[in-house]
Amino acid sequence: MQTQTNNTTATEQMIKQVINSWTSQNRAVTSFFNKYNDDAYLNEVAPGRNRAIYLLGHLVATNDSLLPLLGLGDKLYPQLEIPFQATADDKKKDTIPSVAELKQYWEKVNATLTEGFSKMLSHDWLDKHTKVSAEDFALDPSRNKLTVLLGRTNHQSYHLGQLNFLKADLKA
Amino acid sequence: MQTQTNNTTATEQMIKQVINSWTSQNRAVTSFFNKYNDDAYLNEVAPGRNRAIYLLGHLVATNDSLLPLLGLGDKLYPQLEIPFQATADDKKKDTIPSVAELKQYWEKVNATLTEGFSKMLSHDWLDKHTKVSAEDFALDPSRNKLTVLLGRTNHQSYHLGQLNFLKADLKA
Repeated sequence: MQTQTNNTTATEQMIKQVINSWTSQNRAVTSFFNKYNDDAYLNEVAPGRNRAIYLLGHLVATNDSLLPLLGLGDKLYPQLEIPFQATADDKKKDTIPSVAELKQYWEKVNATLTEGFSKMLSHDWLDKHTKVSAEDFALDPSRNKLTVLLGRTNHQSYHLGQLNFLKADLKA
Repeated sequence: MQTQTNNTTATEQMIKQVINSWTSQNRAVTSFFNKYNDDAYLNEVAPGRNRAIYLLGHLVATNDSLLPLLGLGDKLYPQLEIPFQATADDKKKDTIPSVAELKQYWEKVNATLTEGFSKMLSHDWLDKHTKVSAEDFALDPSRNKLTVLLGRTNHQSYHLGQLNFLKADLKA
């Protein structure tokens, strides 16, 4: 029994740490978008590259897609998929949501994910995610929810590295 | 017993996936540095930012520091700490190793880490890393080797996002 208890604790500890890793990158993105005036995020993060506002929309849309993928519910903002995931940053288009709106969406998606994570048990993370069939999952048990979260954590870090190149003193 | 076996399998599966996440980002960095001629990596990744060669040295030095931190041995290239971790990219200095040399170091560090990881048992990952005291670890059991690997995985993704801004067609 002692060993079993220790192992249960071990899986819980591991999941907690993977979620903490997610949260740390998520908060670093939040801090970045609270650092400057909203106008600064209309700049490209580097010459000829995506605007910071586009990367914010892209990160909201990507995190939002975790809700159905982890079986936590429907996307909150499905309308963001086309402008921020399916298409590149169209710098002439001014029909995308404002920085202030995207920041609200970011908070809402993250709060919804945090609530969802809090209800998941350790073994839920090793269950298949919703886009893989039972047959394919049987062949490769790593196609589970934990892998999805690890991937999305790296995705946040990847774009955070790019966002930190933004020069906020340029005129938008 | 069944439950205990399942939990042991669960911890092993989780560790494997965290290592896979590390490996996927590590390989993406390797692919990036095999994409162009060595001269291309002498360019800054964006105007006024680090050169790609500096980021390669920085990633080698950071990954190398995992060896002592995880208790897997001494650093292989301690001489990289000053130019690539303690100091910013000094673009006028030509005393740093060449791209070809750094790529060799990168391969050697990664092969040594992979070998070290293969010898670690699941519970080793939940042991304290070598830079935290037993007292501090007792207060915060998340200061373990798994947290270190998760952090270094994000670190690779962060700089990979920046490296992918490199325009290889510029003259170095």
